[in-house]
Amino acid sequence: MVDIDSRKLRLAMVGGGPGAGIARAHRSAAFMDGEYELVAGAFSSDPAKSKAMAKPLYIDPARAYGSWQEMLETENKLPADKRPDAVSIVTPNHMHYGPAKMALELGFHVIMDKPITVTLEEALDLRETVKKTGRVLALTHPYASCATAKLARDMIKAGHIGKVRKVVVEYPQGWLYRLFEAEKGNKAAAWRTDPKLAGSGSVGDIGTHAANLSETITGLKITSVAADVGTIVEGRLAALARWEGGVRGSVQASQVSTGEGNGLDIRVYGDKAGLHWRHEDLDFLTLIYQDKPAERWHRNTDWANAISPSAARVSRCYAYHPEGYLEEFANVYYNAAMAIRCVEAGRTPGELDLDFPNVEDGIRGLAFVQACLESSRNNSAWTDIIRY
Amino acid sequence: MVDIDSRKLRLAMVGGGPGAGIARAHRSAAFMDGEYELVAGAFSSDPAKSKAMAKPLYIDPARAYGSWQEMLETENKLPADKRPDAVSIVTPNHMHYGPAKMALELGFHVIMDKPITVTLEEALDLRETVKKTGRVLALTHPYASCATAKLARDMIKAGHIGKVRKVVVEYPQGWLYRLFEAEKGNKAAAWRTDPKLAGSGSVGDIGTHAANLSETITGLKITSVAADVGTIVEGRLAALARWEGGVRGSVQASQVSTGEGNGLDIRVYGDKAGLHWRHEDLDFLTLIYQDKPAERWHRNTDWANAISPSAARVSRCYAYHPEGYLEEFANVYYNAAMAIRCVEAGRTPGELDLDFPNVEDGIRGLAFVQACLESSRNNSAWTDIIRY
Amino acid sequence: MVDIDSRKLRLAMVGGGPGAGIARAHRSAAFMDGEYELVAGAFSSDPAKSKAMAKPLYIDPARAYGSWQEMLETENKLPADKRPDAVSIVTPNHMHYGPAKMALELGFHVIMDKPITVTLEEALDLRETVKKTGRVLALTHPYASCATAKLARDMIKAGHIGKVRKVVVEYPQGWLYRLFEAEKGNKAAAWRTDPKLAGSGSVGDIGTHAANLSETITGLKITSVAADVGTIVEGRLAALARWEGGVRGSVQASQVSTGEGNGLDIRVYGDKAGLHWRHEDLDFLTLIYQDKPAERWHRNTDWANAISPSAARVSRCYAYHPEGYLEEFANVYYNAAMAIRCVEAGRTPGELDLDFPNVEDGIRGLAFVQACLESSRNNSAWTDIIRY
Amino acid sequence: MVDIDSRKLRLAMVGGGPGAGIARAHRSAAFMDGEYELVAGAFSSDPAKSKAMAKPLYIDPARAYGSWQEMLETENKLPADKRPDAVSIVTPNHMHYGPAKMALELGFHVIMDKPITVTLEEALDLRETVKKTGRVLALTHPYASCATAKLARDMIKAGHIGKVRKVVVEYPQGWLYRLFEAEKGNKAAAWRTDPKLAGSGSVGDIGTHAANLSETITGLKITSVAADVGTIVEGRLAALARWEGGVRGSVQASQVSTGEGNGLDIRVYGDKAGLHWRHEDLDFLTLIYQDKPAERWHRNTDWANAISPSAARVSRCYAYHPEGYLEEFANVYYNAAMAIRCVEAGRTPGELDLDFPNVEDGIRGLAFVQACLESSRNNSAWTDIIRY
Repeated sequence: MVDIDSRKLRLAMVGGGPGAGIARAHRSAAFMDGEYELVAGAFSSDPAKSKAMAKPLYIDPARAYGSWQEMLETENKLPADKRPDAVSIVTPNHMHYGPAKMALELGFHVIMDKPITVTLEEALDLRETVKKTGRVLALTHPYASCATAKLARDMIKAGHIGKVRKVVVEYPQGWLYRLFEAEKGNKAAAWRTDPKLAGSGSVGDIGTHAANLSETITGLKITSVAADVGTIVEGRLAALARWEGGVRGSVQASQVSTGEGNGLDIRVYGDKAGLHWRHEDLDFLTLIYQDKPAERWHRNTDWANAISPSAARVSRCYAYHPEGYLEEFANVYYNAAMAIRCVEAGRTPGELDLDFPNVEDGIRGLAFVQACLESSRNNSAWTDIIRY
Repeated sequence: MVDIDSRKLRLAMVGGGPGAGIARAHRSAAFMDGEYELVAGAFSSDPAKSKAMAKPLYIDPARAYGSWQEMLETENKLPADKRPDAVSIVTPNHMHYGPAKMALELGFHVIMDKPITVTLEEALDLRETVKKTGRVLALTHPYASCATAKLARDMIKAGHIGKVRKVVVEYPQGWLYRLFEAEKGNKAAAWRTDPKLAGSGSVGDIGTHAANLSETITGLKITSVAADVGTIVEGRLAALARWEGGVRGSVQASQVSTGEGNGLDIRVYGDKAGLHWRHEDLDFLTLIYQDKPAERWHRNTDWANAISPSAARVSRCYAYHPEGYLEEFANVYYNAAMAIRCVEAGRTPGELDLDFPNVEDGIRGLAFVQACLESSRNNSAWTDIIRY
Repeated sequence: MVDIDSRKLRLAMVGGGPGAGIARAHRSAAFMDGEYELVAGAFSSDPAKSKAMAKPLYIDPARAYGSWQEMLETENKLPADKRPDAVSIVTPNHMHYGPAKMALELGFHVIMDKPITVTLEEALDLRETVKKTGRVLALTHPYASCATAKLARDMIKAGHIGKVRKVVVEYPQGWLYRLFEAEKGNKAAAWRTDPKLAGSGSVGDIGTHAANLSETITGLKITSVAADVGTIVEGRLAALARWEGGVRGSVQASQVSTGEGNGLDIRVYGDKAGLHWRHEDLDFLTLIYQDKPAERWHRNTDWANAISPSAARVSRCYAYHPEGYLEEFANVYYNAAMAIRCVEAGRTPGELDLDFPNVEDGIRGLAFVQACLESSRNNSAWTDIIRY
Repeated sequence: MVDIDSRKLRLAMVGGGPGAGIARAHRSAAFMDGEYELVAGAFSSDPAKSKAMAKPLYIDPARAYGSWQEMLETENKLPADKRPDAVSIVTPNHMHYGPAKMALELGFHVIMDKPITVTLEEALDLRETVKKTGRVLALTHPYASCATAKLARDMIKAGHIGKVRKVVVEYPQGWLYRLFEAEKGNKAAAWRTDPKLAGSGSVGDIGTHAANLSETITGLKITSVAADVGTIVEGRLAALARWEGGVRGSVQASQVSTGEGNGLDIRVYGDKAGLHWRHEDLDFLTLIYQDKPAERWHRNTDWANAISPSAARVSRCYAYHPEGYLEEFANVYYNAAMAIRCVEAGRTPGELDLDFPNVEDGIRGLAFVQACLESSRNNSAWTDIIRY
């Protein structure tokens, strides 16, 4: 029998039918480094649609299912040289919990889109399930997973900007600037703007990315927020925020910032320097100083790699050759693969192997959303984020 | 006798001794368009220092005074062909009110640095004095006076971005990132960080620029704030804000954002487009859309001038030839000169002549500061800005 | 038996041993869209090193060879359900011709790194071989293959900038600024700076990218050059150039532009507008006008896709979500896969399928190098580029 | 009698009638630092038009003349406390030589727009006249006079980028993209495109700016060119060039680069670093390295001023507060004023006082144009620039 380190990991997918853009990103990410092969899928709840995906994805049509329950049950019984190692979950938010729970309990590793679940209870339950089963659960927060976000984190950890004082993080998008949810056929808009399905509009959909990015890069948890959650067309978040250690600043996210594409942007100010990262320029970090010229750092340079082995590891391209959005997802898939291989082979995963967002990040995100909504209901009163 | 339209306006200056950077900006601004000549000054409270400025400024040493009271009294008695028309006040904040009040009452026009005064009572009193005397009072908010800010305002007024929904305005600086006020010789830092002299730290010093810019460009008043005024080294402001018409957003200002130079930046989102202006790129406006490519507008192009005669009027350089900070001050001085000429000649100033910040902007600024400080004391509770 | 459209294409690789960066890009590109699986390789001329690559690439060690001749011969004899469909050639320049020639003659399709060969004779021979065998030969000019380069080409074709008048294309890099070739272990520098192995230094290495980009985007061939090929450390090219239709401009490339990363940049001016593309910002095109504001076009927007189905087809990520260098290679691999599938299934490939650089581009590149070197030897005299 | 250091310099202007944009720039530049007052003018060859300028410029109508000869003769006879010190020449190119020659011979200092004259003979004659009269002649090359160009020059002189190897300088504009000269009323286009009046189209008009900038910043003279002077609509220059010390590169200029505003841009590469300056971003220099992050230098920072006292002296605004095109002209006027004061007071001007373009730069410019035109006529053969 081929040992786990001599073969690709086998992946089954939940969600990702025709036209699902995010599923395409997950698949490219899984394939890009040659670590995974796709072997099965419950691509749609419509069995015909699910089957139809088998051909363009070059998988066995017999392994394309009309329900994730059926897929997990059937695939679980396959012999060891066929059974999937991991399940990738790319369904709308309200269908994250079910397949994740079942997959973990059957012994599959899980790589899933964020938010982890719609409710905190579900997320806390997944935490227990992960603990109980010992499986890997990776959450695709792509932005905080890119090489320069890892570099930023490691530069701050190493003291390059001094003691952190202030954080300004923003995530403006514009695509919901009109009532797209009223328009037929915009499925992506439809479930995202239905609170029962998505959780909490923009706060949950992209506010959690902004919050997660700030916590990842600074290494500091947000402790409380004074939030204003607006309802122009749909949710929009503006929050004053405090992080551990007396750090102050703001977190903003919106999907009605007309004209904005995907403008995630963070600035962190320490007592020695400021650091600026923005997603549209994701190969670079800008470091600004009061006592010398501003610097533009590119990932995968000798000087960046000397500070951040984590960033070096996930830099596929030479310095000054752009990387993109798919690579961010691929960073999660790659490190998760390394962790899964360790778990399967009985080795302890290293720190670099575990450098991906996990169930704790998922719980933090939901607690952040909870606090924002509560603050907004209470006239933007400062509200603590509960540590679960 | 030479009529007012056939000669330069005569200007006396209060403040602006050796090394005063802002006074140099005021003088260049006054001179640039050939509308003013400097004839007198109370450049320093030290008579010798004041006298010493006469030579490099090429004015009559007899007209350099050691006190502004003395200057105003003496110069006021000069014959009509020598007496100054206007007084420029460039002293630290706590010395704005006195000379402004006296100058107006003696019949001089006033061009003064912001904030208008340290207290609201003083500002309200100046409003009455202006009303009573019929003199021109211009306040140098340079940023909101640049050509592209006027263009932005006129584009929004003309409907180019649709109904305004959201505003994000920020003003990060870094120069107080260390306890400069503790260092000898940094006079600029010293008075700015002494609340008795400056009013209210960064909130008053630069927060008012941010607030004023947002009100000028959108044409909407800020109605309430939920503010967090921090004390890292000195004042720092982060506020959720609401503008007239249900517009929401945020206002942030800081002088401890290490590495930042003078990063005033505003984004306004309407239901048709978004608009982005930033001071480091002050010849351009960026318009962003969901349904067509983003556009970069330069001031003084045919298409910009067709929308904004106000911007066209103060564009001294061809399109694509940069303008700067001095031109922003000069825009205030130029329009004020036009208004002064009208008043002196008995004409009614036109709308373009009056396109400069005035006593009302000064009062708005102080009311904004008042509300921010009150909100911050009340755990960032939403606090209305009083309309005086 | 599984038909060609229901399975991944099987790929064998020549070159790409440990540490070969460009091979990693080729593999990620081949895998990214799920169109290829790697089944064999002659990764190194050292059989042990070649074998060692089998494990991290998860291929059968029996199919890792110490010579490409051995690989091609052995793999060619495998049964139809195992035999590779295509060969990817990622060796240094002087080892392109041999494996390409042999692979084509054995009936394999070929995807190969540029320059196609070291000599024109070899390239012309490959042209004949392609014609004779009917196989697909794709050449990885990544830059001209990115979505926005395709968009630029299609916008120019559709008249968006009017009649082309002027072209300025540049490719500055800095990595050879010191005599890296003298340093041990810098294998990439070593062969690139040895004219026998690389062909012609920077002219061939990156000058051909610049020339190819200009011809691809404008749709016009370069007809003559007046070139200065310098020898600071190594080759450096500056050339005045003329394109078909009386277009004039310049082509520059250098690997000793200290501090430059990978700054490929082209500006094309027509009689209606100018167009600017630069590789460090590869998701955007800038269109500039004399009679309206400049525009920033992002790939994969509705308005861009309406102009360029070719660009739309290779845009994997949503607009405003960055793509990168790997995607550029993947665009070649993807379209080549579509063409290969057609050829294998007896269908005629469509225009979009064939949208990748081919043997003609390779020949053009070598003719360009030839003319530049000749012009430079002749005191930069204008020299025609021969049409082979 | 008031000594020269206690009064403004008196300036007379040749040219600058209604609508003359460049004259406005000269006047703002002269006024900005308070060093000059305008006292007379031959603003137009139409006496009525010239008189009409007296009122908006607030000068004595008696001193507005219909011919420069009349003005120079009349003003020269005024008593010492009225007679102008200097003459500013802002006429079209073919009217530079006459008034400059006469003004110098009458003992006036001269500040004049470029190109110095239309022919080399005239320029060489002015050199002799300057030598003979001992008067100051300053030439307004604004771009090379801005603070960051001075900083760039002083950084290179101090070795910050090592030994210079390569230069790429470009000056694209688009405003002549259509046959504006055929349109009535575009006076600026009319004389610029008439070779008898302007000298040599774009080569002389903006090519000389590019060449001058490269020589100023690098401190190295251009020794030879291989040039292609095109005639799309009007002149356009592309030239391979060699500078002293074996430096190679290119110089390009065009006024038909549709959509370009005023894109003067230079990159200089040394053996340690590269330096990038562009006019649209004139407060910054970018330094790029192979062994550390790129740096953005702003003028008037402590670290910049430590390297360049020349740049520090002409930085009117704080760091990170933009300067513009007018300040560039003002830098010439300011330093010229310092030099004039020295000459008048019998002091030897210091190095900083003389830091402005002069008659030698004018001659260099014409020699550059001469060589470009000759090279272009000779099929772009390498042609030496004659040192006069």
